[in-house]
Amino acid sequence: MIFAEKAESLPLSSIKIQDSFWFEYIRLVKDVIIPYQWDVLNDRVPDTVKSYCIHNFKVAAGDVKGEFHGAVFQDTDVAKWLEAVAYTLEVYPDKKLEALADETIELIEKAQSEDGYLNTYFTIKEPKCRWQNLMEGHELYTAGHMIEAAVAYYKATGKRRFLDVVMRLADAIDEQFGPEDGKCHGYPGHQEIELALVKLYHVTEINKYLRLARYFIDARGKGENYFLQEEKRPSFKHIFPELRGYDPVYSQSHLPVREQDEAVGHSVRAVYMYCAMADLAYETKDEALMNTCVKLWDNMVNKRMYITGGIGSSGILERFTTDYDLPNAENYSETCASIGLALFGKRMAEITKDASYMEVVERALYNTVLSGIAFDGKSFFYVNPLEVWPDNCMSHTSKEHVKPVRQKWFPVACCPTNISRTLASLGQYLYFQEKNKLYVNLFIPNKTKVILNQTEFNLELKTKFPFENKIELNIKACESKKSAIYIRVPEYARNYYILINGKLYEEMYIEKGYAVIERVFHEDKIEIMFEAPAEYARANPKVRADSGKTAIIKGPLVYCLEETDNGDNLASIYADTGQGLTECYDEEMLDGVLVVLGKGKKIKSFGWEDNKLYKTMKPELEDITFKAIPYCFWCNRQPGEMIVWLKELM
Amino acid sequence: MIFAEKAESLPLSSIKIQDSFWFEYIRLVKDVIIPYQWDVLNDRVPDTVKSYCIHNFKVAAGDVKGEFHGAVFQDTDVAKWLEAVAYTLEVYPDKKLEALADETIELIEKAQSEDGYLNTYFTIKEPKCRWQNLMEGHELYTAGHMIEAAVAYYKATGKRRFLDVVMRLADAIDEQFGPEDGKCHGYPGHQEIELALVKLYHVTEINKYLRLARYFIDARGKGENYFLQEEKRPSFKHIFPELRGYDPVYSQSHLPVREQDEAVGHSVRAVYMYCAMADLAYETKDEALMNTCVKLWDNMVNKRMYITGGIGSSGILERFTTDYDLPNAENYSETCASIGLALFGKRMAEITKDASYMEVVERALYNTVLSGIAFDGKSFFYVNPLEVWPDNCMSHTSKEHVKPVRQKWFPVACCPTNISRTLASLGQYLYFQEKNKLYVNLFIPNKTKVILNQTEFNLELKTKFPFENKIELNIKACESKKSAIYIRVPEYARNYYILINGKLYEEMYIEKGYAVIERVFHEDKIEIMFEAPAEYARANPKVRADSGKTAIIKGPLVYCLEETDNGDNLASIYADTGQGLTECYDEEMLDGVLVVLGKGKKIKSFGWEDNKLYKTMKPELEDITFKAIPYCFWCNRQPGEMIVWLKELM
Repeated sequence: MIFAEKAESLPLSSIKIQDSFWFEYIRLVKDVIIPYQWDVLNDRVPDTVKSYCIHNFKVAAGDVKGEFHGAVFQDTDVAKWLEAVAYTLEVYPDKKLEALADETIELIEKAQSEDGYLNTYFTIKEPKCRWQNLMEGHELYTAGHMIEAAVAYYKATGKRRFLDVVMRLADAIDEQFGPEDGKCHGYPGHQEIELALVKLYHVTEINKYLRLARYFIDARGKGENYFLQEEKRPSFKHIFPELRGYDPVYSQSHLPVREQDEAVGHSVRAVYMYCAMADLAYETKDEALMNTCVKLWDNMVNKRMYITGGIGSSGILERFTTDYDLPNAENYSETCASIGLALFGKRMAEITKDASYMEVVERALYNTVLSGIAFDGKSFFYVNPLEVWPDNCMSHTSKEHVKPVRQKWFPVACCPTNISRTLASLGQYLYFQEKNKLYVNLFIPNKTKVILNQTEFNLELKTKFPFENKIELNIKACESKKSAIYIRVPEYARNYYILINGKLYEEMYIEKGYAVIERVFHEDKIEIMFEAPAEYARANPKVRADSGKTAIIKGPLVYCLEETDNGDNLASIYADTGQGLTECYDEEMLDGVLVVLGKGKKIKSFGWEDNKLYKTMKPELEDITFKAIPYCFWCNRQPGEMIVWLKELM
Repeated sequence: MIFAEKAESLPLSSIKIQDSFWFEYIRLVKDVIIPYQWDVLNDRVPDTVKSYCIHNFKVAAGDVKGEFHGAVFQDTDVAKWLEAVAYTLEVYPDKKLEALADETIELIEKAQSEDGYLNTYFTIKEPKCRWQNLMEGHELYTAGHMIEAAVAYYKATGKRRFLDVVMRLADAIDEQFGPEDGKCHGYPGHQEIELALVKLYHVTEINKYLRLARYFIDARGKGENYFLQEEKRPSFKHIFPELRGYDPVYSQSHLPVREQDEAVGHSVRAVYMYCAMADLAYETKDEALMNTCVKLWDNMVNKRMYITGGIGSSGILERFTTDYDLPNAENYSETCASIGLALFGKRMAEITKDASYMEVVERALYNTVLSGIAFDGKSFFYVNPLEVWPDNCMSHTSKEHVKPVRQKWFPVACCPTNISRTLASLGQYLYFQEKNKLYVNLFIPNKTKVILNQTEFNLELKTKFPFENKIELNIKACESKKSAIYIRVPEYARNYYILINGKLYEEMYIEKGYAVIERVFHEDKIEIMFEAPAEYARANPKVRADSGKTAIIKGPLVYCLEETDNGDNLASIYADTGQGLTECYDEEMLDGVLVVLGKGKKIKSFGWEDNKLYKTMKPELEDITFKAIPYCFWCNRQPGEMIVWLKELM
């Protein structure tokens, strides 16, 4: 592969998402989630676990006396909160919120050690143990999130204070780590800083940050495993006893990264690392690394991904397992992992300009990422099963980790703040630009300004997608100049065509999944039309868990059945896929939703009243009509059973 | 319930099991398993985990210098081995084997402390920690197995040496534990000694052993949980760190036993306790306790038992979970738990003389107990799943505990010796006697002597059951006297009738599942005839895991499909239950087995060659004939996939 110039997201400040499927969530971030999460970080939300995150910074800063509380990576909660604040400020300037962020940054700065080190856990609790337990200490992971937040805040506000803090931190890390003699030859137990350092390099143009990111990626998995070396040291103390007898596969450090060809280990660690690999492959024109990214992507999305864009099928240590092992009720599919999948897919799409990556990104965003948050913005899923039987989600089943209702907060609270920074930065997925080419990736209503061919283009995209499949893109170019607009042709789209100013655009051709419109634009109305009816999907027969089953999809949306609409024992429902599905917009339900009705049968409990467990009697079926709603909206009404993969009448 | 006189097993010495389905296993115990397990206990079997069991006794006895190795309950391996030896000697006297047992008993005696204490782990490794960690130390559990072995050895040989050892041990325990002031008010973390003490009471007629058993049952779960008290002590050291933050439900100590009405916690602990509860209910005419036993049995077998007689559906801590939670691929269903279920069922049947208990006992014995051992007698299943996809039984799935092939030995090796003592004592399940009534429970060929009405009866039972359903029972009574023979009418039997001396016995009536034959016997031939064709069974629709599925059963046997006969991806097979099943005896396969052939369909992989994970295409089905073999015989040929519950074409 020869590296062409990559395409890149437009600045968030240039994109305003409009009233739509997504807008309600983005409004939530600003109006509800950011204030709510600030309260959580300050331990002001009753009836849930305490965060202690701000408390820890105050202690480290010497403002209050006290102990450290929470997980070793507790600092990242405020980092991701600040990152969400930054993205939000970029689109919606807000003096009061900015002042709060500034105060918080001041506190963080005060908690930073003179030598640049920044981590409240180690500063308060284990000051002598800095960098001694990379396997579990999450110091580099935490630093990575700080750097990401600071870069975002700098881009949003132009203020350097936070950026200076993380540059001192990155400098301290650079002094500590590297291939040179006398430096520590370790690498992060939880990848994250690698992609953050690439971001820091982009805003500062300081080469050593890129070099350090590359060192972390290159050193990983080479020679004797660094974490096993750590674990052997007599002074080594486990922070997570469950990791005793460490398995390097868990952190993708079992092999040099270029030799990896299967998505393995902890899924969030994996995708964060793949993001950095893609970044570095492009920045350093490293073909071998890019090929590895392609192989890992293919393995992940073609053999180890749920139809909802969930990854990490094991509830034990949040891991990938084997090809086609996709159990529906006891899986993990962490919200953060799908966010990481979207981040990786976005990078791959930018580099390759191949729309197939955005197909997966869209699937992850519309399903597992969005299901992570409730309509009220105040409760969250960490784990995203495709089938829930609440009575059975109990300790000592394989489903102990599955929460049948969204939680107000978590002892390990990576997901809620990750969702908010993702929603706040959703604009980055909408468009890519490479010189005079504009790529339209997602069908989310927005108003955007972009400079193509030195000319300002004002775009307005209108649609009721994903509930309707008509997209109107109005373009006003200040000067009439030739440009190219690449509009994604989703794999689920049928009879895709484009009208320009009301006339069929016959010159259209498809390039890597994008419909190319190359012309002189002035004031034009582009209408993108396709069909994406609700339909039944099936999994590869090698997926034992979905064998003989069918899921309902409509465009990027996966649908599910809930107990509240369909009664209990959803596992006993058969879809009669010979009969069609009916789409029906319900304005009342869930603030307006396209429900899908299907025909099928349900196993009757008739004949089992005697409470026997086994009989020879064949069960009787009764005709039913079932109602499905988008998976991302599940559990916003009565809690209860939920199912994605229905049995199919054969 | 008013307690009538209970029925009891005949002495093992009076029963000789003949050539049959079971005989090969019983021969194995004598000729292969006992010698093999002796080699294991002496660390002479290569390529497997070392037992160190005999080594530990030698160290404790002062015969060799060394450390303790193995699990805290390692002593029980030799105890259960001796118990199996005792049962075997009772039927097949063998001087050489008896001499080896005597030597072993001498070693055990030498390892006993002067005060009667006997446990090599605590004697060698933690002499100051006796009785300090009842939660995890397994001292009372280990003592229980020693007592059971000694009672069996005394009954088999009449030799008192071992019995004296365990009486000193039991006396020491009685001095330590009890409701009196100054005694420890604890109870076993793993129940077992309770039922053993009842056995010791029966052979010694010493009341205090019964009293001690009753104390342990009565004290359990009352007041502040004893194990939580232990865990709070500053000196408390965990032996099993995974039990930190102890859950009393795990050991059924969360409630007084009489208040328990659901089978919960660790399944082996549960059923061993239920055995003792049934024993004590009968011995002390305790109706409340008996009612509790009935409730627990009903909950267990009607809501929490696999069709194979497996119990304990959770792979996490080998536990019961919730009603109808019976996952097939990630379950535990420990072999020992099914043995315990059989022991409990036998006791309930003896007390109630209700054949329905034996129905479950038979199911457990023919399926999960028997599947625990390979045809060669040298490898064992601990975990008994109903569906195995070997590639997926790996660390970090919910199936890490599932071994797709039988193992030579285990670090925790309770099951292999439990299987051998169960096979060696199989005779105890065949007949029960109450005064002049003889109950015939199982259809296993045998020759037996029994005294009914002061007259010796010689019985010979001939059958090819479970592959054929004609049972011939020849009776020779020395004197012609009136007696009653109760012959079990299995729930799976159709068109059951009895011929006596070639003529239909029309006076037959059914009492609690037994066909009663009351007459003057002299030299009579009783023929028991019924139909029990291979047929399709279904689970209660509340069992989500089996919803829309069907299993093949024939009499007590559950059948399964193996990859070696049916290709891979067994999950993609549908049974066409509208078409019949064909039974076919195959002399070559598996040393002679009745295979069952069925018609069905299999999902074709056609159309998935492009390796996509999800599509809208409906899969195509192809017609197949599938071959099923008894579940207990699975994995005696090529290892591979196995499945019990097939999808049913609806």
